[in-house]
Amino acid sequence: MGFSVAVAGASGYAGGELLRLIAAHPDLEVRTVTAHSNSGQRLIDVQPHLRSLSHLSLVDTTAENLAGHDVVFLALPHGASGELAAQLSDDTLVVDCGADHRIESGDDWAAFYGGEHHGAWVYGVPELPVLGGRQRERIAHVRRIAAPGCNASTVALALAPGIRGNVIEERDLVAVLAVGPSGAGKSLKLPNLASEVLGSANPYAVGGVHRHIPEILQSLRWAGATTPSISFTPVIVPMSRGILATVTARAAPGVSAADVRAAWERAYANEPFVQLLPEGHFPRTADVLGANTCLIGLAVDEAAGRVVVIAAVDNLVKGTAGAAIQSANLALGLPETTGLSMNGVAP
Amino acid sequence: MGFSVAVAGASGYAGGELLRLIAAHPDLEVRTVTAHSNSGQRLIDVQPHLRSLSHLSLVDTTAENLAGHDVVFLALPHGASGELAAQLSDDTLVVDCGADHRIESGDDWAAFYGGEHHGAWVYGVPELPVLGGRQRERIAHVRRIAAPGCNASTVALALAPGIRGNVIEERDLVAVLAVGPSGAGKSLKLPNLASEVLGSANPYAVGGVHRHIPEILQSLRWAGATTPSISFTPVIVPMSRGILATVTARAAPGVSAADVRAAWERAYANEPFVQLLPEGHFPRTADVLGANTCLIGLAVDEAAGRVVVIAAVDNLVKGTAGAAIQSANLALGLPETTGLSMNGVAP
Amino acid sequence: MGFSVAVAGASGYAGGELLRLIAAHPDLEVRTVTAHSNSGQRLIDVQPHLRSLSHLSLVDTTAENLAGHDVVFLALPHGASGELAAQLSDDTLVVDCGADHRIESGDDWAAFYGGEHHGAWVYGVPELPVLGGRQRERIAHVRRIAAPGCNASTVALALAPGIRGNVIEERDLVAVLAVGPSGAGKSLKLPNLASEVLGSANPYAVGGVHRHIPEILQSLRWAGATTPSISFTPVIVPMSRGILATVTARAAPGVSAADVRAAWERAYANEPFVQLLPEGHFPRTADVLGANTCLIGLAVDEAAGRVVVIAAVDNLVKGTAGAAIQSANLALGLPETTGLSMNGVAP
Amino acid sequence: MGFSVAVAGASGYAGGELLRLIAAHPDLEVRTVTAHSNSGQRLIDVQPHLRSLSHLSLVDTTAENLAGHDVVFLALPHGASGELAAQLSDDTLVVDCGADHRIESGDDWAAFYGGEHHGAWVYGVPELPVLGGRQRERIAHVRRIAAPGCNASTVALALAPGIRGNVIEERDLVAVLAVGPSGAGKSLKLPNLASEVLGSANPYAVGGVHRHIPEILQSLRWAGATTPSISFTPVIVPMSRGILATVTARAAPGVSAADVRAAWERAYANEPFVQLLPEGHFPRTADVLGANTCLIGLAVDEAAGRVVVIAAVDNLVKGTAGAAIQSANLALGLPETTGLSMNGVAP
Repeated sequence: MGFSVAVAGASGYAGGELLRLIAAHPDLEVRTVTAHSNSGQRLIDVQPHLRSLSHLSLVDTTAENLAGHDVVFLALPHGASGELAAQLSDDTLVVDCGADHRIESGDDWAAFYGGEHHGAWVYGVPELPVLGGRQRERIAHVRRIAAPGCNASTVALALAPGIRGNVIEERDLVAVLAVGPSGAGKSLKLPNLASEVLGSANPYAVGGVHRHIPEILQSLRWAGATTPSISFTPVIVPMSRGILATVTARAAPGVSAADVRAAWERAYANEPFVQLLPEGHFPRTADVLGANTCLIGLAVDEAAGRVVVIAAVDNLVKGTAGAAIQSANLALGLPETTGLSMNGVAP
Repeated sequence: MGFSVAVAGASGYAGGELLRLIAAHPDLEVRTVTAHSNSGQRLIDVQPHLRSLSHLSLVDTTAENLAGHDVVFLALPHGASGELAAQLSDDTLVVDCGADHRIESGDDWAAFYGGEHHGAWVYGVPELPVLGGRQRERIAHVRRIAAPGCNASTVALALAPGIRGNVIEERDLVAVLAVGPSGAGKSLKLPNLASEVLGSANPYAVGGVHRHIPEILQSLRWAGATTPSISFTPVIVPMSRGILATVTARAAPGVSAADVRAAWERAYANEPFVQLLPEGHFPRTADVLGANTCLIGLAVDEAAGRVVVIAAVDNLVKGTAGAAIQSANLALGLPETTGLSMNGVAP
Repeated sequence: MGFSVAVAGASGYAGGELLRLIAAHPDLEVRTVTAHSNSGQRLIDVQPHLRSLSHLSLVDTTAENLAGHDVVFLALPHGASGELAAQLSDDTLVVDCGADHRIESGDDWAAFYGGEHHGAWVYGVPELPVLGGRQRERIAHVRRIAAPGCNASTVALALAPGIRGNVIEERDLVAVLAVGPSGAGKSLKLPNLASEVLGSANPYAVGGVHRHIPEILQSLRWAGATTPSISFTPVIVPMSRGILATVTARAAPGVSAADVRAAWERAYANEPFVQLLPEGHFPRTADVLGANTCLIGLAVDEAAGRVVVIAAVDNLVKGTAGAAIQSANLALGLPETTGLSMNGVAP
Repeated sequence: MGFSVAVAGASGYAGGELLRLIAAHPDLEVRTVTAHSNSGQRLIDVQPHLRSLSHLSLVDTTAENLAGHDVVFLALPHGASGELAAQLSDDTLVVDCGADHRIESGDDWAAFYGGEHHGAWVYGVPELPVLGGRQRERIAHVRRIAAPGCNASTVALALAPGIRGNVIEERDLVAVLAVGPSGAGKSLKLPNLASEVLGSANPYAVGGVHRHIPEILQSLRWAGATTPSISFTPVIVPMSRGILATVTARAAPGVSAADVRAAWERAYANEPFVQLLPEGHFPRTADVLGANTCLIGLAVDEAAGRVVVIAAVDNLVKGTAGAAIQSANLALGLPETTGLSMNGVAP
């Protein structure tokens, strides 16, 4: 009973979050967890918070070990999943939480990532408004899904309703994100040290070089934009998880504040996991910690002529592992919300 | 030996920071510290970090108690200093760290603050590029100075060189700030509680309603703008102090990246307390903690057509108390850097 | 289908956590949420993280509003629940998360709390080793339960196996706790402000005056101690949730390290929510964030002659709301683990 | 004018803090800064908060580069300074901030560190009460000083007055410390990552294995203890700097609370940098951030029979670099407080 699951990269933060969510999922059962340098260890020694999975041990990340499961989640460093995925059965549902299968344009891939381009899989953000409907319809029953970049999907969810509804201009978008360091994974680099992050706000990838930029623009084109442009700046702040995206756009000429709000209301009125807050309310990342929820606040700044969208997500849940499972639910024909909570852990 | 000093509002965060800096200043000597509800207590019981001032006790905040000093610093809630200041001798140097004397326009005052407008004093941001020179020249030898709003001066310092140098457009400016909660003072309100701030990024005053907006635009007009517009969003993040402002502007037509950098270099080449970092370097708030320094990083995002300016300050030092003392130094005829450190306390 | 539930004090942190857990509980259904000053508001405006409960509004905390439910959880300030509880039907299961019904001794109550003593209800820490068994047996089928103090239950769980097993001495116990500020609730006091807590470690209630001390000693007497003594010091640190208790005790004469470990193993071998880590492993509070789990690490310091027990809990879950629901499960005849997760939200 | 200084290990946290303090010292002038992997870089690119030292570049850490200065501060990993120091002139004042020259006992060295034992230099904690006086007298005019371990000196300062005054027992001491991660330096290890530290309290070196234990006991023997024993547990908490030590000891038989307080008052009555707070007051680490101050709070818990001492220091200042400079001041014949601040940077 239930679908058998393997998680590759189970020793990392995204892998750990996948396992936390799968452990609470009634229809998914983890059989195999794989890792690289931690192979051979008990899972619980590497992920001591996953008490209910104390029976699992890590094995090597190989196609053999991943074979024979109904679902395989890949939570590997960028560049590692392309080749591995090619060796998995076409019948297996594979959800890649890395970047390897997100970008359609070979030029964008070359410019922002480099190395071999493995092509794009269906993008795992079900609520994304796209021309003719929502991304959801594209996900049902496929066997290959690219879970989104956490920053990219947050900004896309924030902006797409305005693009789709023609109430904002597609040029001159600006996104500034307060992000927790868990998005960087367990990478042992100086900027990721606690002493560097505590008590400080640290920008990185400033000036148009962040790898999530082409992914954002791709989503906006799906929503109807032609040649969108965005200034994108992430700022690491001292919270382990969370993304608070402050995204602004020029209001389209002749559009009223009511028109603007209506566009976002239309987009997300019936979405359990993407919710527009009432006028005057804005989200905090604590509200969505641990939840598969994206909360959105909206204001129109008449004096500045800009629409301000504030979006909050947990980068490891709605930004990564939750999006992966929500998309897997769709692909498996399960109710989309199965096993996912919309409630945050606050304070 | 030295100028005698009184600090009104010595029990608050801004007052405490003034005292920390004055205690290290060779030419200023604190004689009187005043407070409201804490009056009668030993200063050190209210500000236990100020060990060198254990001889001082708090007295009531009255014109009588503030009289007879060479310098009076006011660190009072907005609305409290206007009337009090009017009772102080014209010969006394008065530096107001509150908002009461920052805004020239009565309309702006009415729209963003309300209540009686006490008019504007000389604005205490010496390095600000203004038409015909720098704000510094206006400060020398005056007896009334308005110390800046922390967010406002940070954004103004970030943008004014581009306005002054005609390399950015004055419309459609966007500023998003990661700020520590100490800017809100000791106000006992729910959003200021530790449990609300820890582990979260919390926006406030979204959509063009923050009181520092008219102050920013005023500074930009001094720098040469005509009808500037700015979208301004502060986000509280879990660090006690610090402002990391990510400010973007459309590059002016036909301007090169070198032109852009040259404008900021020109503005701050010889400034000890406002420093432009080399290309590819961006500041962190930890770098300026406790220092009277504003560090600025600059990038031109060609694809987005925007100039990105990142500015880091300690909101209580360069944003408030340090600016007050730097300005007081000028007004008293002392070397401008006296008693102020440009080195941060990091990590 | 399911038991109907009311939560009194639903606007606070403990109340919010009860609701988060109840929302995920298959057999409990919230019908009524009450508050004091927030009465009349939508729950979701006060607890914006509880998205699945958007249909609830807060009503006044009165016996009338609480009547007619199968279960009533009280999450009220100390002193408020005694009188209210007396007005609830004897058939209703009432779980008090406040202190009013925890202390058996009238003298202890008078010395540490004062005011009217309402007597003690059954103490809601199922795993606690007590003479003749475990606290669990006392909880089944009662209608009145006192959920524990978060610090008190953590220290009791850490020490009781050693007392029960006669491997530590009952005098001269020492407990030092790193605690998050959410334990203090939404109380608007200066020490609870973010600026006071961020970047600092702040002790409070030092020197034997903390109210959880008699509660700890009471538990240790239940476990077999006669006249135990403990030095207890909590230190607030900058994390919203969590308790990391470092508890030490003199090893009993002639007891080996293996004897010591065996005592804790015996106590918790089959407990899902209180787990002893292997030798050389020690817990972190992040491992239990959001979980109903108490993780315990154990070492014997031969040179110092002391047993060192490190216990980690989430103060709002295993320390309060989770313990309340676990106990309610027992009292309602449900499987004890129903609706409660042992997995933490990390990182 | 002034003494010429070299700092070895200038790219690390301790080295950076030495430089921050030296930059504010009127009689010390940095000439040379050395590093290992960062050699060749501008200091300011590695330590971007040290704006006033923008003229310095890092050179290799060699005896040649360190030769010819009046004072050499060594801030190197343990094991690296022994050999290097042997090559420096006997006339040079050498202050070692590492562990290599702290421990007198070869057995202790072998048990807790291992490798070659270079013997002990004079221990750089001037205020430490020792038999016959204070450690200060031993420091004047020596040419070799071992700056203390941050945890060790904090606990020693907390306890030595009680030992020296015979008001506490020397056996069964217990110390639990909340510490910031900067004490671990820039070491790229998983437990030092921000995502591991944020939102969590993490114990380490539990059970009598921490290297600072023999250093503490050595200090207590200097203060008069014969065979002291201590249980010592550090807990990493999410603040970049700071140590909050909660240290308890059994009160000596027949000693009154007044006797206890008198012992600490006697020890530190005239010390600028080690201050006993009034009864009922306890320090926070924020009060000493950036300061060379150790604040001590004291309580007698009659019911538990223990004296509770709370000591707060900045691990990088009073715990390391400040202690080094304070000791150097003594050795150089300068006023002991020269260039050091007793005021913290709070909030």
